[in-house]
Amino acid sequence: MRWHSGGVSDCIFCAIAAGAAEASVVYEDDAVVAFMDLRPVTPGHLLVVPRVHAAGLAELDAAAGARVWQAAQPLAAALRTSGLRCEGVNLFLADGVAAGQEVFHVHLHVLPRFAGDGFRIDAAWQFPPRSTLDEHATAIRARL
Amino acid sequence: MRWHSGGVSDCIFCAIAAGAAEASVVYEDDAVVAFMDLRPVTPGHLLVVPRVHAAGLAELDAAAGARVWQAAQPLAAALRTSGLRCEGVNLFLADGVAAGQEVFHVHLHVLPRFAGDGFRIDAAWQFPPRSTLDEHATAIRARL
Repeated sequence: MRWHSGGVSDCIFCAIAAGAAEASVVYEDDAVVAFMDLRPVTPGHLLVVPRVHAAGLAELDAAAGARVWQAAQPLAAALRTSGLRCEGVNLFLADGVAAGQEVFHVHLHVLPRFAGDGFRIDAAWQFPPRSTLDEHATAIRARL
Repeated sequence: MRWHSGGVSDCIFCAIAAGAAEASVVYEDDAVVAFMDLRPVTPGHLLVVPRVHAAGLAELDAAAGARVWQAAQPLAAALRTSGLRCEGVNLFLADGVAAGQEVFHVHLHVLPRFAGDGFRIDAAWQFPPRSTLDEHATAIRARL
């Protein structure tokens, strides 16, 4: 079976959810499937995906989204006692190419962290005045 | 009023949720409050916190956790149409010092991304064989 880029029928995460593509599955229920990331940042790095295809957050049903989170929380707890090195956990989701999304089926990364694990975020952190923060809050609130 | 490190009564995010500390609030309901991060990675970077104090995911009630996610999803959509530069969105949560947590009240980062925004993740990405992924999946599954 070959996987082309493009439509839903070619989505690798849909195929995993359907049991039609190989994956190291950690958890599944009627709403989500969780499986090991093929390119882990740290050993134990896994992904939680909704069964229903949604390319991004905009297409994801709110209830299905909540189920993704609800699966991630016990998975984070399980990582901490799994025997894999885990002193902390990050949840991470990339929505859109500019955010680093590479597979266009919503997926939440759940990854163990430990001192010296090589994971590092670089960013242009700012320290804007309150007036700027208030302006931004107003702009976002206006679109809710 | 001064904020000491330590107990719940000194928690800055509890104070914001109670309206007792300054914040640029974007959204609030009975379960969560969302407000601008004081040290944004990009303009529009905000935090969603549960009203009920929980230092980390282990202490966070599952229903309250789901409400954090359910607030984040429309906030991500609002960022995209807010007029602030937003070509993608990251959701990020740090649970524990080793994961980068700095304030010990659960908070989900919602941050706009755009080409050239300076945000970058460095990590020691691996490509383990399927047998290793299966072992990790088994170890995590055993703790669920």
